[in-house]
Amino acid sequence: MKGNSSMRISYPASQKIYMKGILHDIRVGMREIRQLDTVVIKGDVPEHEKNIPVVVYDTSGPYSDESVPTDIRQGLPPLRAAWIEARNDTEQLPTFSSVYCNERLNDKRLDSVRFPVIHLPRRAKDSAKCTQMYYAKRGIITPEMEYVSIRENMQNAELGIATHITPEFVCNEIASGRAIIPANINHPEAEPMIIGTHFLVKINTNIGNSALSSGIEEEVEKAIWSCKWGGDTLMDLSTGEHIHETREWIIRNTPVPVGTVPLYQALEKTGGDIAALSWEIYRDTLVEQCEQGVDYFTIHAGLLQAHLPLTRERTTGIVSRGGAIIANWMRLHNAENFFYTHFNEICEILCRYDVGVSLGDGLRPGSIHDANDAAQFAELSVLGELTETAWKHHVQTLIEGPGHVPMHKIKTNMDEQLKHCHGAPFYTLGPLTTDIAPGYDHITSAIGAAQIARYGTAMICYVTPKEHLGLPDKEDVRAGVIAYKIAAHAADLAKGHPGAEIRDNALSKARFDFRWKDQFNLSLDPEKALEYYMAGRSAAQSDYCTMCGPHFCAMKLSKQELKN
Amino acid sequence: MKGNSSMRISYPASQKIYMKGILHDIRVGMREIRQLDTVVIKGDVPEHEKNIPVVVYDTSGPYSDESVPTDIRQGLPPLRAAWIEARNDTEQLPTFSSVYCNERLNDKRLDSVRFPVIHLPRRAKDSAKCTQMYYAKRGIITPEMEYVSIRENMQNAELGIATHITPEFVCNEIASGRAIIPANINHPEAEPMIIGTHFLVKINTNIGNSALSSGIEEEVEKAIWSCKWGGDTLMDLSTGEHIHETREWIIRNTPVPVGTVPLYQALEKTGGDIAALSWEIYRDTLVEQCEQGVDYFTIHAGLLQAHLPLTRERTTGIVSRGGAIIANWMRLHNAENFFYTHFNEICEILCRYDVGVSLGDGLRPGSIHDANDAAQFAELSVLGELTETAWKHHVQTLIEGPGHVPMHKIKTNMDEQLKHCHGAPFYTLGPLTTDIAPGYDHITSAIGAAQIARYGTAMICYVTPKEHLGLPDKEDVRAGVIAYKIAAHAADLAKGHPGAEIRDNALSKARFDFRWKDQFNLSLDPEKALEYYMAGRSAAQSDYCTMCGPHFCAMKLSKQELKN
Repeated sequence: MKGNSSMRISYPASQKIYMKGILHDIRVGMREIRQLDTVVIKGDVPEHEKNIPVVVYDTSGPYSDESVPTDIRQGLPPLRAAWIEARNDTEQLPTFSSVYCNERLNDKRLDSVRFPVIHLPRRAKDSAKCTQMYYAKRGIITPEMEYVSIRENMQNAELGIATHITPEFVCNEIASGRAIIPANINHPEAEPMIIGTHFLVKINTNIGNSALSSGIEEEVEKAIWSCKWGGDTLMDLSTGEHIHETREWIIRNTPVPVGTVPLYQALEKTGGDIAALSWEIYRDTLVEQCEQGVDYFTIHAGLLQAHLPLTRERTTGIVSRGGAIIANWMRLHNAENFFYTHFNEICEILCRYDVGVSLGDGLRPGSIHDANDAAQFAELSVLGELTETAWKHHVQTLIEGPGHVPMHKIKTNMDEQLKHCHGAPFYTLGPLTTDIAPGYDHITSAIGAAQIARYGTAMICYVTPKEHLGLPDKEDVRAGVIAYKIAAHAADLAKGHPGAEIRDNALSKARFDFRWKDQFNLSLDPEKALEYYMAGRSAAQSDYCTMCGPHFCAMKLSKQELKN
Repeated sequence: MKGNSSMRISYPASQKIYMKGILHDIRVGMREIRQLDTVVIKGDVPEHEKNIPVVVYDTSGPYSDESVPTDIRQGLPPLRAAWIEARNDTEQLPTFSSVYCNERLNDKRLDSVRFPVIHLPRRAKDSAKCTQMYYAKRGIITPEMEYVSIRENMQNAELGIATHITPEFVCNEIASGRAIIPANINHPEAEPMIIGTHFLVKINTNIGNSALSSGIEEEVEKAIWSCKWGGDTLMDLSTGEHIHETREWIIRNTPVPVGTVPLYQALEKTGGDIAALSWEIYRDTLVEQCEQGVDYFTIHAGLLQAHLPLTRERTTGIVSRGGAIIANWMRLHNAENFFYTHFNEICEILCRYDVGVSLGDGLRPGSIHDANDAAQFAELSVLGELTETAWKHHVQTLIEGPGHVPMHKIKTNMDEQLKHCHGAPFYTLGPLTTDIAPGYDHITSAIGAAQIARYGTAMICYVTPKEHLGLPDKEDVRAGVIAYKIAAHAADLAKGHPGAEIRDNALSKARFDFRWKDQFNLSLDPEKALEYYMAGRSAAQSDYCTMCGPHFCAMKLSKQELKN
């Protein structure tokens, strides 16, 4: 990592504020946006009316708190370390449990790319359990649970907005499996967040290099960039060299939960030879990543041999990378999916670190033609069965969903998921509502994502403009995140989430008041709004813009009309 | 107009084709996209399977036909002139009927900006009627009606796809008012297109300079650019100098129907003085624009004095420019809306040129807070009353709709429109599903537009990324059009429009075959798809991209799996 390693995130007219817990000694970071006064002319006298600051959900972590030093060579402060230690059900290990991890650690050639600080792993003590679901089932309200209850409500209580999201409610939702807090005990840097249908809709972003592309520094930058714009979780889908080291840099510097698809790394370990994949290699990869701090794993355990014939008539076959790999493995070995046959062992491992499982949809449709077909729903029903197994092991569980789905078939996806998966949170990729717009699939999919989120999907995985075409760069990440923040927020409004409308109302009032700066500051992307505004603007204007010119501004006219 | 005045639109691997009429001597332009063969390895022998060309709806008119000379100083060929003449119910006038129009024509200072060719206007003969609705009510299937029936079906008949869209069906839909063909007899350059809930969802684009911005050349370029990307109709919302001359250039060079808000020009004529507006000035403006060839007028005739108190508690008051102007006029004069009081006379004028009326929603909500309020729906019910009046005069009618509406309130808009407006086609702006994303309102609104179109809205008016911030430039027009083509097509798929899936299926098959060029050529924006693809690509690759790298391409793996 060369050059200045201090990273900062700043937002205009904003300050970091913290709200304190009642049950626990915790403080929850939020972003407060200041507003100018509204100026009203009464008679000839201008009167000022205060506009209270707006508090918004903040995924930027310590990067937006000037009082916290950030150095990506050191990593973020371990917010949750004391909470985890205090529970006294985990222990720090003297060394790493993964063979591969130790090999990498001892490989001098990797010194130049290795994260400078070694973090020895924690693990649940023998016979102890350390998952949020385990605690919740016993009625224990953890700091993590109180944290998310405060975070979800932002300033609603202060504003007198009624809310059902109490710490007790969070605890019940976790216990029932309807929500998860992805919180590996080895990723104490992450701020707790909750994924569930009764909470704010969350968005996941994917980053990661491939064998052909970007380096570690760029990936860390993309991770922080994703948090800046509002990504709630982050999947590192790297498939190139230095996956292990890249991931370490990302985890140590990311204030949101990090997910992976461990199969990708397992396949790298065989040099891309699918036949050489084995449970043993995969198992060691799981342990390696559990001890690094990955918060949830996508595992394609529901794709069975019996499903493969169902894909023969598809237009686009199997488009999930993990699904295609495991399908090939099953064919080469004429054997059942080893994720499925070893699922109990997988859960035992995950349980010891509180890593969540995100049950992958290896048979998600990759085209409008293949949407909602027999293959897709056959796998979904197996995911439901696996959910019950995971819950038996107290492993927090997500269900992954499509893909490409035309609008009239979206609701069926949510209905089928509810029918088969016992209320576990749904986590969908889009869906893309048409196939005909490569280069704009952040839009084809935001249209579908907003709708499926409205029907109850808890987290939507972003799609960038480069989907189907190439790896996203920083600007693509920004475009994808904002498109998905829009979809998620549109769904929050439609679901009537308490307080969701506060920001809309404040921004619209600022717009009507011609408080341009407030309008920009309250928006999802103040920099872009300002840039577009300035592009068409001459210096002297104040209460109109280039859209309408001076004679035709509806809001100006409307204000005149109201004044009289 | 300086420099090369020949304009061309080209699409990769595409050719202009024409399908002939049966009832009339007409030919309907379409775009045919060639595809490469699919190569299948059987044993060691590559076998080629043909992929038939895909025919897509084409809004680019003669600009994409190399055999037709285009010179924007001459204007497009008058496709419909012979059809109109043959009906023998209209006559060419010796001069213009509008006082203002003649003043402009005789003003030597305008010679440099005036369109070089004078087109004398046509008008229905005394006591004759010349609207498509009038013909339809009498059971006459015009060339325009047959044209749109062929255009809507593209190659469906050839492919054996059943369709209900016969010329007779079109005629019935026009007669009942459920669909319109905007087709001013003075805009014979426009290719007939139909707007109605039982047809392909259409998109409108807005262009136009304001007092502060762009010139004539730029507006003509934007108009043609809009047609290139797929805009079905075009509204010229210019408010600056030379509105009359700019519009002439646009109409003569635009192969799609053109709409305006005549009030904007009427207000320019009073120097922006709302109090000085009068029925006489407005009337002359209507005649002026009817004789130039505007195909439909937005007229805010449903906003009444009684509605104004209903807007007092709104967050954003009146955000429609036309609505705000007429509200001020009513207050200043303490008089009823003169569009309403003169609506019969307005219809009499429109009927003589077959200009459609688009009943404007002056009280559309401008924020999430104001959605579906009493003011909005009170106006809507007046629009229903006016629809019946317009139909009595055989004037083709659209109903305009919101605006800013959260997702859970969208369907109510369609339901209320159906309840009050007797099946007249709904034409909505978005709706925007949240207020918090200025700079991205093409996305906030495409999410809403796709949904309201699915519920039956016939045409959606695009929103560009610059909405709320400034006037769109060419790239903004492109971004807005593509976002709305996506929304419209997603709705066509969801509505089960015959043949809508053909393009999706072809593109997805190309994707699965790694026919990259075909994938791009079949997409809504081939240039953008290619640009993104090349950005991450090295020269040697062929059957994978930077997204996955060589080991991880799901489709490649899926093909291997299927082969065995």
